[in-house]
Amino acid sequence: MKAEIISVGTELLLGHTVNSDAAHVARELAAFGIDLEHVQTVGDNAARLEAALREALSRSSLVVCTGGLGPTDDDLTKETVARVAGLPLVEDAASLARLREYFGTRPMGENQLKQALLPAGAEAFPNSVGTAPGCAVPVGADKFVLLLPGPPSELLPMLAGSVRPFLERRTGEVIVSTMIRTFGIGEGAAAERISDLMQGSNPTAATYATDGEMFVRVTAKGASEAEARALAAPLVGAVCERLGDVVYGVDVPSLEAVVVAGLTDAGLHLVTAESCTGGLLAKRITDQPGASAVFETGLVTYANSTKTRLLGVPEEVLAAHGAVSPQTASWMADGARLRQGGDLGIGITGIAGPDGGTPEKPVGLVYIALSAPDGIWLRVMRPQGRYLGRNWTRQRAASHALDLVRRRLAALPMEAERRENIGARAPDGA
Amino acid sequence: MKAEIISVGTELLLGHTVNSDAAHVARELAAFGIDLEHVQTVGDNAARLEAALREALSRSSLVVCTGGLGPTDDDLTKETVARVAGLPLVEDAASLARLREYFGTRPMGENQLKQALLPAGAEAFPNSVGTAPGCAVPVGADKFVLLLPGPPSELLPMLAGSVRPFLERRTGEVIVSTMIRTFGIGEGAAAERISDLMQGSNPTAATYATDGEMFVRVTAKGASEAEARALAAPLVGAVCERLGDVVYGVDVPSLEAVVVAGLTDAGLHLVTAESCTGGLLAKRITDQPGASAVFETGLVTYANSTKTRLLGVPEEVLAAHGAVSPQTASWMADGARLRQGGDLGIGITGIAGPDGGTPEKPVGLVYIALSAPDGIWLRVMRPQGRYLGRNWTRQRAASHALDLVRRRLAALPMEAERRENIGARAPDGA
Repeated sequence: MKAEIISVGTELLLGHTVNSDAAHVARELAAFGIDLEHVQTVGDNAARLEAALREALSRSSLVVCTGGLGPTDDDLTKETVARVAGLPLVEDAASLARLREYFGTRPMGENQLKQALLPAGAEAFPNSVGTAPGCAVPVGADKFVLLLPGPPSELLPMLAGSVRPFLERRTGEVIVSTMIRTFGIGEGAAAERISDLMQGSNPTAATYATDGEMFVRVTAKGASEAEARALAAPLVGAVCERLGDVVYGVDVPSLEAVVVAGLTDAGLHLVTAESCTGGLLAKRITDQPGASAVFETGLVTYANSTKTRLLGVPEEVLAAHGAVSPQTASWMADGARLRQGGDLGIGITGIAGPDGGTPEKPVGLVYIALSAPDGIWLRVMRPQGRYLGRNWTRQRAASHALDLVRRRLAALPMEAERRENIGARAPDGA
Repeated sequence: MKAEIISVGTELLLGHTVNSDAAHVARELAAFGIDLEHVQTVGDNAARLEAALREALSRSSLVVCTGGLGPTDDDLTKETVARVAGLPLVEDAASLARLREYFGTRPMGENQLKQALLPAGAEAFPNSVGTAPGCAVPVGADKFVLLLPGPPSELLPMLAGSVRPFLERRTGEVIVSTMIRTFGIGEGAAAERISDLMQGSNPTAATYATDGEMFVRVTAKGASEAEARALAAPLVGAVCERLGDVVYGVDVPSLEAVVVAGLTDAGLHLVTAESCTGGLLAKRITDQPGASAVFETGLVTYANSTKTRLLGVPEEVLAAHGAVSPQTASWMADGARLRQGGDLGIGITGIAGPDGGTPEKPVGLVYIALSAPDGIWLRVMRPQGRYLGRNWTRQRAASHALDLVRRRLAALPMEAERRENIGARAPDGA
């Protein structure tokens, strides 16, 4: 099956909005193996939309339109599609009921009511977030135009809740995607390790790199969800085995979610002491609802005096080794754990840049220490190649800290990071 | 002049990449008043790209292609455009010299060298970041195709450094854009206040809302930059005057940048104490290079015990009013300033959700207090309408804290927030 996307909205042509909708729809189509060869963007202009529709329908049997379904005068998509399909607009009772429920006792104008009109014979897609329903409009004997809302907050639930089932019925196939998430391996190295596993057509495996993490998506098609899952499982297992313990989770939302869940299961409290990341690690931990069960205290110790006052980093350590040193990171982690009352402590100190580097301590150098009752583990993040900026450096350093905690919680080997005695460790109970 | 964009790349059609390039290019075109009526996306396929090019050139005199300029076999854009334009590819000496400089002593293959070939008569656009130059290819007597690289990190400098000057020469116009940034007013209210100022065609004013902030962009065209600036200045002044002190800056990068600069100028140190924002405020402050001059200590006091231990919030205050209360926020701000040694202290406590709300203290309720030697100022952020999520609530609360500091530093009226005595203020010197 061939498909096209038509994105409708003058805001896209003015560059006010980035067209993320097209990518969301494209991923759904790709999961079903539906070929997407063209995406067109047109403004809120009925003549140009009609021309784009006719062109798309001449080439493809499925056309997906996003945007232009709302209540205002420049929302023209539904009317234009109905005209091209030769279908009158008729009131859809279920959509009208949902609209009335949405508005409750608030008054609802004519323009709002028009959202309950759908081309005759169309299948309504309920909008769980906003007011405008989507729909699948039959065109001739065997073609369809899908009308979907423009705001991603409305589009995404409709893709999962209505479009995917629609495509499953049309194709007789159910798609299951599994995301294998890793930290600590590059996309190139990962692709090399699993290159033979990426050759299949069902299930498929593909790599994605983003924000310093690397994901592998395994997608399988089957006649039922159970069949698709059964197809995917061996490949998921093989990818995980090849990649080893850099895999931090399968179908989990994030590294921080895994860490918060792991701390919760273990009944442990983490205390963070951050210098160059400046609160980013604490922010990522507290992005998780329920973090309060495992996270009570985070310190941003930007100044040396604060490192000494709140964490007990000795002034002599700072003077002898500098604020950016393995010794300071270790004292910070110990101080976080022992002085602030945690089971595990993290210390992060480094040079996020763009300024402040020296030949010995270049921009991008970050030390990350994990303190536990039985020792200290240290990671060193060194600048590699081109400096990727302050944000990237901070994000990556916080991820390293989370990964240290993850490996500790999962009892994974940490030999590379083991430091029995960093030379200046705070005695327990200090 | 009419223009079209053709985005080239199979990764766009698979949904691996969101097409932000089209928005970047669209904004440049809009600034020159060039009409953009179509954006097409095609994969790395010469036949479909050629068809898209011919269609675009039949409708428009300027076609902008992004992507497909690199060294690999599926980078076909330049070859396809040259064929459509009927121009041979010839070596561009300056582009070749830049390539050799980029690679230095590293070996460079044939595929890399092909990047120095440009359609005969094309104007080269140097790539300041990557390897593939862009160019402007003349097509017939009066049309042009611009070839630009796909990676945004390469595209954006080329838009500013080469495309804008090219369009200035073609149109005889220079474009100047000014961004007026506000916090504390909605887009609708702002548009109402300046609706008459948004009617002009040169200069123009348009509103943008993002992440709870609202911006007004004023754009002017003139025969020279000085002329464009002179045209824009009165409108910029008028918009700022209408909007009043919700304007936090003109052509500034962010609210946090304004706050860090203001603290630096005033020689003041800020200490933050965060509960529901969990480090996000500290993170935003330390996003700014140079924040260490004004920010030494940030505390994430997620647990009540930490609020008492590090900030001195009395257990009786927590017991009587709860952790989410104006009293606790005020004590946190005082504690941050007095116990941690700052000139100004911020305390934030609230319910970021999605759980944890009660009828009296609903999800989305946040108290933000600013402590200074001469008093405490309090902002209350109440949930309005639909809950917009944990991230939004935390982001907005941090912005309110920054805005409180900004207003203090700028000596703006803060009557609405003034609390002489919150009922439980820590005595100075506590």
